[in-house]
Amino acid sequence: MKVSYDGTKFSGFQAQPKDRTVQVEIERVLTILTKEEITIHASGRTDAGVHARGQVFHFLTNCTIPTDRFAIAMNTRLPEDVMILEAKEMPLDFHARHSAKRKTYRYCIDNGKFPDLFGRHYRLHVPVPLNRERMKQALSYIVGTHDFTSFTSTRSVKPHHVRTIYDAKLIEAGPFIHIEMTGNGFTYNMVRIITGTLIKIGHGKLKPEDMRLILDGCDRSLAGPTALPIGLMLMDVSYE
Amino acid sequence: MKVSYDGTKFSGFQAQPKDRTVQVEIERVLTILTKEEITIHASGRTDAGVHARGQVFHFLTNCTIPTDRFAIAMNTRLPEDVMILEAKEMPLDFHARHSAKRKTYRYCIDNGKFPDLFGRHYRLHVPVPLNRERMKQALSYIVGTHDFTSFTSTRSVKPHHVRTIYDAKLIEAGPFIHIEMTGNGFTYNMVRIITGTLIKIGHGKLKPEDMRLILDGCDRSLAGPTALPIGLMLMDVSYE
Repeated sequence: MKVSYDGTKFSGFQAQPKDRTVQVEIERVLTILTKEEITIHASGRTDAGVHARGQVFHFLTNCTIPTDRFAIAMNTRLPEDVMILEAKEMPLDFHARHSAKRKTYRYCIDNGKFPDLFGRHYRLHVPVPLNRERMKQALSYIVGTHDFTSFTSTRSVKPHHVRTIYDAKLIEAGPFIHIEMTGNGFTYNMVRIITGTLIKIGHGKLKPEDMRLILDGCDRSLAGPTALPIGLMLMDVSYE
Repeated sequence: MKVSYDGTKFSGFQAQPKDRTVQVEIERVLTILTKEEITIHASGRTDAGVHARGQVFHFLTNCTIPTDRFAIAMNTRLPEDVMILEAKEMPLDFHARHSAKRKTYRYCIDNGKFPDLFGRHYRLHVPVPLNRERMKQALSYIVGTHDFTSFTSTRSVKPHHVRTIYDAKLIEAGPFIHIEMTGNGFTYNMVRIITGTLIKIGHGKLKPEDMRLILDGCDRSLAGPTALPIGLMLMDVSYE
């Protein structure tokens, strides 16, 4: 299933005791509909406050609800900040995380003097002027296969941080700046740390070429701060 | 002052006992800042649930806060769904309502199979396919000076409903349809009734040419329903 959610009022995707999470909302509805105890498996977790337009998850069920009716049946029972966009029956060996080939994330910055009120939960407001050309140049260095340790939270427990970025672009839309990246995977906080570093570069606190030095240094302390979750959106997960 | 607000959690612009209104929020902050009892006068009221990107209001004050500091000082004290965009000192004979020459409203429809989650408070979701060419044709009939009684709430207390529409256009943006109108004024619920009628035309329940007959009939019962406030936005008020 493909799901969109507004992360504003969630403590992230993954089920946690006490906190409101996307996973628990979805499993609750699936259990009602299928009358089975369902556990879902997503392409990856998203942090508290992070949004999704195209998160993907799978689950096993014996229920006979036709897949083309599933989305509507679920949406009538889900809260207004979660919406199923698509349901598809997959081969038994499909796994939302293991089978994922590419993910696309977008980070949205509102660089207007005052933030656009109607996107206030989905964009990071940066009131200082950002030089977009410098940010574009800096962004170009991350394309390719690199060790992204400098752009990974020190809380990461992964064995290594080598990832391949197929595409990274900066899209300008009036006062808004969208930073969009497609890769075979992303390390913990990677998009947010890259964005935090790009903001420093756009603001003139670092040079565009510093991006390359930071990447080569493999040291989290060289990069900029972790940008707030508010502007981050998981756009798409693609499979074979 | 020019103000933007998200109407979702307001019972409209105008002060009312008990209900949360934009006017009361603004006057509360102005009274704190100026230490005077301030009453504001807007270009017009907006109904419960209606949004604004460029509402204009005026007030009289003796306070000495520089106009270029006023917006920031107010925004730090206003709730997150109201934002002052501009402050300007005006001649004493300026009146936000009487001096207004043109207003622009936009009504936003989400015509996707599923609504875009991130604009769910700002667009009306219409899941049935709408024919945009038919809607464009229908919309063209309202340009000019007409008696808009058919597109006016029967609760209107105005002496007449003759208004001039300078421009009316339908803007397509993927699954979204924006209906934008500029006129010298709008009668009670006028944009919402025009939109409700256009939706019936786009859906094939009425013919584009019916728009002209409805207009000429000067009878509210001829037109379509009043579209929900959720999709309506006051975009701009212009003065000499």
